[in-house]
This record gives sequence, structure tokens and C-alpha cells, in this order.
Amino acid sequence: MTIKDFQQLIAERYRKRDKARGTPKTFMWFIEEAGELATALANEKTSKKQKEEEFADIFAWLCTLANINDVDIEKACINKYHKKQPKGFK
Amino acid sequence: MTIKDFQQLIAERYRKRDKARGTPKTFMWFIEEAGELATALANEKTSKKQKEEEFADIFAWLCTLANINDVDIEKACINKYHKKQPKGFK
Repeated sequence: MTIKDFQQLIAERYRKRDKARGTPKTFMWFIEEAGELATALANEKTSKKQKEEEFADIFAWLCTLANINDVDIEKACINKYHKKQPKGFK
Repeated sequence: MTIKDFQQLIAERYRKRDKARGTPKTFMWFIEEAGELATALANEKTSKKQKEEEFADIFAWLCTLANINDVDIEKACINKYHKKQPKGFK
């Protein structure tokens, strides 16, 4: 599945509600999902399935944020990472 | 570009360093990128190109976290969002 297809799937399903919620509140939900991912990764008893669900959820919320800010994540990734190697690393 | 291809691109480029850094410190960098995304989205003067770069960066760090936790984000997204519609929403 392409990045674009997944972002589009999220748009079709949630865009109307996401637009109404707006960026600041959507960002808060995105961070709430980051917290769930932290909980899953910090706990050694977390199953692989649970981890997978948290990664899917946070990526879905990232797509939501992108949808309501008119950003095409696939295009962004290709431009920044595929076409060239970013300078510097952490 | 598929989700899997992008995750693989990040793995090929950074996996060795990411494995050595480990999950907790990588999660801290992921959150640092979330902060950069917040700054970009909160500032009305942010250009579209800058927003795109922040979305690409945070997705790259999400892929890094997935790589070092043996999670396939594409598979996770298909299982959770493509095959069925999750119950409940925010």
C-alpha cells in the first residue's frame, strides 16, 4: 500500500470530522497516540500485535494532521529522503 | 512509494546507528520531531515546503522506531485500517 493510498483512506473516512476539529486539537490527539506508543514500547510485556496497532494508530493521526494541512506525506518523503540523503543525523 | 519501501529506505540508511541508540533514546528524538512539527503547524508563516519537511522527518523517525522494534508499519496499517473500520473515534 502506498503512503498516498493510506493517507487517502484516512481522508475519505475522517476528513470531514478532522476539518471541523482543526489542527490544534488534532495535534493533541496525535500526542495522545504518541503516549500510547510510548506505553507499548516501554512495557516489555506488550505483544507484537499491540505494538503494530499503536504504530498504525499514530501514523493514521499523522495522516489526519497532513490531510487538514494540505500536505502530501508521500511527496514530502520522496523529496526529502528518496531524492537525496539529508545532511546531519541524530 | 509504498509504506514498506520508505520504511526499508530508512532501515538501509540508518538501522545500524538506530539499533545502537535503542528505543528509549530514539523515542526522545521522535518527540523532538513532534515538537518541530508543532512549531511548524502553529506558526502561520510556515511555508508549505517547511511543513512537508517536518511531516517527512517525523514519519522517518516513526519508521526508525518501527525498524528497531521489528514492526512492519504497512502490514499494521492494512490490518487495522484497510481490512476493517476501527470502532470508536476521537
